[in-house]
Amino acid sequence: MVSKQILSVLQQVKDGALDIENAYEKLKICPFEDLGYAKIDHHRTIRQGTPEVIYGAGKTAEQIEGIIHSLLSHSPQNILITRLSEESADYLSQRFSLTYDSLSQIGVVNRLKLLTTSGTIVVATGGTSDIPVAEEAALTAEVLGNKVERLYDVGVAGIHRLLSHADAITRATVIIAVAGMEGALASVIGGLADSPVIAVPTSVGYGANFQGLSALLSMLNSCASGVSVVNIDNGFGAGYLASMINHIGGNES
Amino acid sequence: MVSKQILSVLQQVKDGALDIENAYEKLKICPFEDLGYAKIDHHRTIRQGTPEVIYGAGKTAEQIEGIIHSLLSHSPQNILITRLSEESADYLSQRFSLTYDSLSQIGVVNRLKLLTTSGTIVVATGGTSDIPVAEEAALTAEVLGNKVERLYDVGVAGIHRLLSHADAITRATVIIAVAGMEGALASVIGGLADSPVIAVPTSVGYGANFQGLSALLSMLNSCASGVSVVNIDNGFGAGYLASMINHIGGNES
Amino acid sequence: MVSKQILSVLQQVKDGALDIENAYEKLKICPFEDLGYAKIDHHRTIRQGTPEVIYGAGKTAEQIEGIIHSLLSHSPQNILITRLSEESADYLSQRFSLTYDSLSQIGVVNRLKLLTTSGTIVVATGGTSDIPVAEEAALTAEVLGNKVERLYDVGVAGIHRLLSHADAITRATVIIAVAGMEGALASVIGGLADSPVIAVPTSVGYGANFQGLSALLSMLNSCASGVSVVNIDNGFGAGYLASMINHIGGNES
Amino acid sequence: MVSKQILSVLQQVKDGALDIENAYEKLKICPFEDLGYAKIDHHRTIRQGTPEVIYGAGKTAEQIEGIIHSLLSHSPQNILITRLSEESADYLSQRFSLTYDSLSQIGVVNRLKLLTTSGTIVVATGGTSDIPVAEEAALTAEVLGNKVERLYDVGVAGIHRLLSHADAITRATVIIAVAGMEGALASVIGGLADSPVIAVPTSVGYGANFQGLSALLSMLNSCASGVSVVNIDNGFGAGYLASMINHIGGNES
Amino acid sequence: MVSKQILSVLQQVKDGALDIENAYEKLKICPFEDLGYAKIDHHRTIRQGTPEVIYGAGKTAEQIEGIIHSLLSHSPQNILITRLSEESADYLSQRFSLTYDSLSQIGVVNRLKLLTTSGTIVVATGGTSDIPVAEEAALTAEVLGNKVERLYDVGVAGIHRLLSHADAITRATVIIAVAGMEGALASVIGGLADSPVIAVPTSVGYGANFQGLSALLSMLNSCASGVSVVNIDNGFGAGYLASMINHIGGNES
Amino acid sequence: MVSKQILSVLQQVKDGALDIENAYEKLKICPFEDLGYAKIDHHRTIRQGTPEVIYGAGKTAEQIEGIIHSLLSHSPQNILITRLSEESADYLSQRFSLTYDSLSQIGVVNRLKLLTTSGTIVVATGGTSDIPVAEEAALTAEVLGNKVERLYDVGVAGIHRLLSHADAITRATVIIAVAGMEGALASVIGGLADSPVIAVPTSVGYGANFQGLSALLSMLNSCASGVSVVNIDNGFGAGYLASMINHIGGNES
Amino acid sequence: MVSKQILSVLQQVKDGALDIENAYEKLKICPFEDLGYAKIDHHRTIRQGTPEVIYGAGKTAEQIEGIIHSLLSHSPQNILITRLSEESADYLSQRFSLTYDSLSQIGVVNRLKLLTTSGTIVVATGGTSDIPVAEEAALTAEVLGNKVERLYDVGVAGIHRLLSHADAITRATVIIAVAGMEGALASVIGGLADSPVIAVPTSVGYGANFQGLSALLSMLNSCASGVSVVNIDNGFGAGYLASMINHIGGNES
Amino acid sequence: MVSKQILSVLQQVKDGALDIENAYEKLKICPFEDLGYAKIDHHRTIRQGTPEVIYGAGKTAEQIEGIIHSLLSHSPQNILITRLSEESADYLSQRFSLTYDSLSQIGVVNRLKLLTTSGTIVVATGGTSDIPVAEEAALTAEVLGNKVERLYDVGVAGIHRLLSHADAITRATVIIAVAGMEGALASVIGGLADSPVIAVPTSVGYGANFQGLSALLSMLNSCASGVSVVNIDNGFGAGYLASMINHIGGNES
Repeated sequence: MVSKQILSVLQQVKDGALDIENAYEKLKICPFEDLGYAKIDHHRTIRQGTPEVIYGAGKTAEQIEGIIHSLLSHSPQNILITRLSEESADYLSQRFSLTYDSLSQIGVVNRLKLLTTSGTIVVATGGTSDIPVAEEAALTAEVLGNKVERLYDVGVAGIHRLLSHADAITRATVIIAVAGMEGALASVIGGLADSPVIAVPTSVGYGANFQGLSALLSMLNSCASGVSVVNIDNGFGAGYLASMINHIGGNES
Repeated sequence: MVSKQILSVLQQVKDGALDIENAYEKLKICPFEDLGYAKIDHHRTIRQGTPEVIYGAGKTAEQIEGIIHSLLSHSPQNILITRLSEESADYLSQRFSLTYDSLSQIGVVNRLKLLTTSGTIVVATGGTSDIPVAEEAALTAEVLGNKVERLYDVGVAGIHRLLSHADAITRATVIIAVAGMEGALASVIGGLADSPVIAVPTSVGYGANFQGLSALLSMLNSCASGVSVVNIDNGFGAGYLASMINHIGGNES
Repeated sequence: MVSKQILSVLQQVKDGALDIENAYEKLKICPFEDLGYAKIDHHRTIRQGTPEVIYGAGKTAEQIEGIIHSLLSHSPQNILITRLSEESADYLSQRFSLTYDSLSQIGVVNRLKLLTTSGTIVVATGGTSDIPVAEEAALTAEVLGNKVERLYDVGVAGIHRLLSHADAITRATVIIAVAGMEGALASVIGGLADSPVIAVPTSVGYGANFQGLSALLSMLNSCASGVSVVNIDNGFGAGYLASMINHIGGNES
Repeated sequence: MVSKQILSVLQQVKDGALDIENAYEKLKICPFEDLGYAKIDHHRTIRQGTPEVIYGAGKTAEQIEGIIHSLLSHSPQNILITRLSEESADYLSQRFSLTYDSLSQIGVVNRLKLLTTSGTIVVATGGTSDIPVAEEAALTAEVLGNKVERLYDVGVAGIHRLLSHADAITRATVIIAVAGMEGALASVIGGLADSPVIAVPTSVGYGANFQGLSALLSMLNSCASGVSVVNIDNGFGAGYLASMINHIGGNES
Repeated sequence: MVSKQILSVLQQVKDGALDIENAYEKLKICPFEDLGYAKIDHHRTIRQGTPEVIYGAGKTAEQIEGIIHSLLSHSPQNILITRLSEESADYLSQRFSLTYDSLSQIGVVNRLKLLTTSGTIVVATGGTSDIPVAEEAALTAEVLGNKVERLYDVGVAGIHRLLSHADAITRATVIIAVAGMEGALASVIGGLADSPVIAVPTSVGYGANFQGLSALLSMLNSCASGVSVVNIDNGFGAGYLASMINHIGGNES
Repeated sequence: MVSKQILSVLQQVKDGALDIENAYEKLKICPFEDLGYAKIDHHRTIRQGTPEVIYGAGKTAEQIEGIIHSLLSHSPQNILITRLSEESADYLSQRFSLTYDSLSQIGVVNRLKLLTTSGTIVVATGGTSDIPVAEEAALTAEVLGNKVERLYDVGVAGIHRLLSHADAITRATVIIAVAGMEGALASVIGGLADSPVIAVPTSVGYGANFQGLSALLSMLNSCASGVSVVNIDNGFGAGYLASMINHIGGNES
Repeated sequence: MVSKQILSVLQQVKDGALDIENAYEKLKICPFEDLGYAKIDHHRTIRQGTPEVIYGAGKTAEQIEGIIHSLLSHSPQNILITRLSEESADYLSQRFSLTYDSLSQIGVVNRLKLLTTSGTIVVATGGTSDIPVAEEAALTAEVLGNKVERLYDVGVAGIHRLLSHADAITRATVIIAVAGMEGALASVIGGLADSPVIAVPTSVGYGANFQGLSALLSMLNSCASGVSVVNIDNGFGAGYLASMINHIGGNES
Repeated sequence: MVSKQILSVLQQVKDGALDIENAYEKLKICPFEDLGYAKIDHHRTIRQGTPEVIYGAGKTAEQIEGIIHSLLSHSPQNILITRLSEESADYLSQRFSLTYDSLSQIGVVNRLKLLTTSGTIVVATGGTSDIPVAEEAALTAEVLGNKVERLYDVGVAGIHRLLSHADAITRATVIIAVAGMEGALASVIGGLADSPVIAVPTSVGYGANFQGLSALLSMLNSCASGVSVVNIDNGFGAGYLASMINHIGGNES
């Protein structure tokens, strides 16, 4: 695309439709057109084809409000707000049509209907304490237009619970395995499935879990092929990546 | 699939085509048929649709030879041997038709022609020292039937080298970013691309890289969306996962 | 026992059979009688009821020979030598009736027939690379008079291999789970079994396994009840502890 | 047991007592019968022969109430609730016959009289600050039907305090050694005892104890045989495992 | 300077202008003249040619007031107070002419007009969350008499934002790169610039960033030449060092 | 002493002054006489010749009150309470003649006049934030009968402040060096002094000090001879050890 | 410069001197002209104004020879080879006019006479074992045209050795402080000097230095202002950065 | 001493016995007189009253020879060489009257008879593998004129071995406790003794001892008072410090 823009500018210069100074300005910014809009990267929305995402942690409700206004003024896109506190959600829901899930702390503004993928993303957790992170992943994937199936509390200490869902696992296009403590879920699922497994270590546990380190190292050392890992508690990242992969297979006809 | 097998066994019992003892045996093993073959998991080859992989490190040439014989006696599949020393490769090449790459230490036995994917996997490295790990990824992906494009030595300290290949990056279906030291390559590529990025930290570096820890942590904390991480120096894992993802898009017509 | 010895000494003093100075000497050392024998703790053999164990790593063949001579001069007990190099084993086998296993690097001298336990110890490994550590555990347990059943290469990435041995696991009195990499084997076995699981992390793996740290943390954080952990690669410790537990159930009648 | 269930289902199919669809349902769930009850694993209670355990941390009083109701509706078993806050205990004690110990934060509901083991579990602590974790272990073991003897504040810096209880230590069937700071208690007890020692590192201490890491590493490196380790502050896990081991020796006649 | 002072004292002794006891006192303290003023090091102000700096964290408003009084009584210098809470700032602003920036928590008292450097310090951040640390650096540098240019939110995941400011980067005399998460900003800027880059890792992020460790290690392993690193979140240190370097080039004429 | 007690008991048995059962009881407890007093170790007070110390952290005011009552009922010794909160100090000072220092959080009850050592302990700190830990050390040493000299805020970044006190350092019998951040004070003092240096790392600092780890490692690696290290923030331990060493030189005549 | 190139290309297109396809090619590569030369980045030599640097570790003598040939074919610049083994140096010195220093393992090819800076770089070490790293820094700086003064073995355990060189330290434009073990040298020099201090932690030491971690953390936590840190043992990086800073002050007239 | 030197110089100036230039020179170097002798610090020998110590690791035999020559040319002192390889010892023993101990790798040159201390240093080890480090400590202390008593292999897993030596421990003036693995020896000895305990963690062990980290943390967290810690494997440091402390009590009359 960038190449096309350069060629087009050059053609216009040759045709005299554009003088050199303006062409220079265009060329300098062509891949960076968004930079005129300061901190908010409208360009990226287009380039990556996804809703804009606001990381809510550490931002005031007013700051988030400002960013939403700026985004909405530019295009009628979907906006996903992660790690949004209940207080901020209350504030924002009085100003925008906000859908909010308090468990995963995800808010969605101005929801457009997206095409849905033909493939399914399975989101599995080891325990019930992992569910908030899993919901961050699942809701992110749903906002991005994916079919999502949840398998919660299927940890390896009761392996029969997981095995009874072997069908869902083998049918999935992508699987997100969310687990704290020993993080073994990713390996077991990785051994059952033929599809990519995105492992999300959580900080669930205590003592020698060292705030998620145990699950993180466990997942990085998975003896199963097809497993990769995102940051501790990074449900959003897993959901976003799963959506990327799931869209390779296209949408429902 | 498992459900169908159970139903079929039950039908045969009802029809008298199968007695209870044999039905029991069938039911016990039906998802585990391979277990009759001791350590070698032929079943997995079928279930996951991929060549068998032998992890060569810590195995003698004779042990690897034995495993290959066992595998070949079962089906004429492709066999990928990772971390294969040059000495073992010499030994094996006198007994099988082995293709060996000394840089990545990968050997391939009995190569069948696979269909090739329509999508492309880009394998990029930060420096020249990361190339052996990258080749492990690239060759793994090629053996698994993928088109692979290599972008080596495009590290972020000379960002123009990477940007000049922006086309390849934006066209790729999956990207493998291999980097040691500060591991920033994954984030920069993640920011440029719309496709999944598999980050492979390498142990390249010294001092405070702590055998790959710096790149590992850097990649796990990537501010770019769509990036996931495999183990330090795990080129094979990245190549295998990239192939999984790339096959979602199907093969060349 | 200590109480009885004190009472006996006092009785002899009262009876005039022992003068005060000698009684003092006896009392001072009675729980420490072995201290007269310098470094070798014959006392412990009696107190703990087990063969003497020599940690062979870092000792010359001649040093081990000396210790064996000293032990044998005291009682005709079994002697277990762990981490015994093949060179030292050659040297010692010319001087004693030594049984040596090169895989686990365990040597046994002067083997007495022990009663065998009624219960069984299952030793399971995640992969084939974990077998040397597992054999150290298994042979230790056998020398200590236990029935041992081996389940090797039943790692969680191919969970069906493990499940096909569910019978052995549920019948065991104690289970030793030996695994490197993500160490998930302990949790899965812990979920299947009603008996104590001794988890042995191994240093098998590379990169972010950090010489066994990943498996260690994973096992310490096991979500399954009944799992405890010994040091990385400590097969001997696991075998010794398993024997202690297994003997609570008594010997075969 | 699983085998028997499969055989029985098959026999019923053959006899016409069961049609295929129902047999399929039975076979699918037979080892997983509990899965119909969503998150609550009634099956496990039976399989592992122990009271149900609820991990109270991070659950509201209402959530715990719901789980208790579900469990009680299924069978009149004992229910152990660990890490139960005083507030939640107040709430629950108005609804169930709850026994609550505020030191260990353990609650017990609907206590059935269990047979008592013939062997004794000794629970020892290094200091007084380790007592809450020790009580979690001791109460867990008592609820599970064990005789428990407490030896608190017998840390190694005043070794005579420990030695004066040598009798209790040598008579025990299992010993739980609970200690923070340098965690040396496990090694000293391990050297005195002939029975298994379960070491529980605690987070008691400050500075270079790094939230329990010092005691954890110390215990993992114990030079005494027969010592294994559970997670930092995991009193429940130690009590549960000790009960498993103690029950190998049978109950009081 | 020290040499001159010693020579001068000696000359006075020789001339009889100073007796031996007083000369001794002078010589003992000559390089340490400030020590007479207890904790406040007036000497250093002169020796290092910079405003006095008060580290406000962990000091009460009254303590800071006392130190300011002591400093002001000695010379009419500028005083920079870092990590000054809003409450303390309120208190102090009623007593001194204090300029306070709540974002960076920096206060300045009694501002003298300093000469301004001819060179420029660029302060760049990876994200908006890094701005408080960046402002600590920028304001410190401005108080010390430097021209400062801010480039905020130019992180590597959107590399075009950074590249559009390539001019500012190549013109700068010193650059301060402030980034959390993967800390890659320092390397990319280091590759673009010919001037020294001071990297400031921030604790921005979560999970495997381990409170800034990921950015710290990433920056220490930068493959770009000319990059050095200060402590996590140490904006003041970076601003102070940048000022030192920038002053080598002299002031505006 | 233990030997003498044993001999004396034996003599009494021989003389008929003691029957065997009572003699046994005496012998069993002779070195452990204190154990009859449950948790409070009166024995140790005598054996180690020092005031009793109560670690106040994590104990309620009432618990501390109980321990003090128990101790006072036994002998009129001095009692040192470390890490005593201001609230607890208020409570206790209404019941005992308590001296309390809020900076170091040290309380002293029932102060007997001790002989004073002939030697001096110097307590030095790197900065003012290290003073609370230093005072814990200094007050501990004073309560134990030592002359103490304080050198506060003499950190290495202004080395002249330290050097101007070289006399005090060279005259000291023992030196306690208290420092956070880079912890270099211990090495510099170690190079100046001929006497033992006890280094106390503090958790003062932020970022890459990792709660005192930087100072701890720095001090353990001191290139100066005669330096040893206690736990992070362990002022009491340093004061106690310094007192032990200082008393080797005897008291003032 | 880039802007000028873009303008020039546009002018040529307007003038018809360049057709669109060729202009496109030019524009695509203009900031990346060097990319035509594969791995060797001639462009960077010009942009950054410094000799080309080859990192010799892990490259064969033949590979280094090839790179030198390529560089020399392009311009008669100086070439600095770091971490060059003695064997490779022997090989290269038969082919190029190589100057080699075996202590620092630095080789220089084809040395042009550079202008010398007016300012001086002081390179100081804590001990004699730090000298190889220091020489890597010092020689790098000299090759880059700087005056260098060496102060070796002036560690803080003998602070008088350092103080006797206070003059050199206060006169320096930049100081490189190289130290292992406790790394305190950087702080002490930072307190004495008014100029930037580049701290180089070395891996010199053993035990709790953890391969340089102690010095690294110590230096990052320096309480002296004006100190920044490079990677462990990174003498080259320090020398290169020091040269950058020193050149701000210009060359000798 | 320094004060006296200054006063003396001033007196000579006043008396005209010294001109100003020479006085200046004298004053500048008076505390640093040794600096004229380059790297070898003769001054320190006098100031600290101990033999010169050469750290042999990483020095060639020729380098050590040179240092010895330089030292001997200055005074007939004792010279202690630590970590001296057997090869270097052979070389040096042909040139000097060298006493060499291959276990501790300590060499002593030109041994003068020193006065012996009245107090005794006890050196204890946990196991036999700790003896080399212990001998480094013991020989260092003997060369420095101390009486030394060795208690080897008295680790806490067989606590009776240690207790049988309680007399030696209570009589000692200083105790050096050398232990690897769990490092509990220091705490147990600290609880038995009234004298200072210098704890030396060793790297003996494997797995989760992490090269001595387990013993180091254990010792730093000792619950016994009077314990301080030196670097891992630092026998010399412990011996040197113990000698300092032991000399406070004076020499044998």
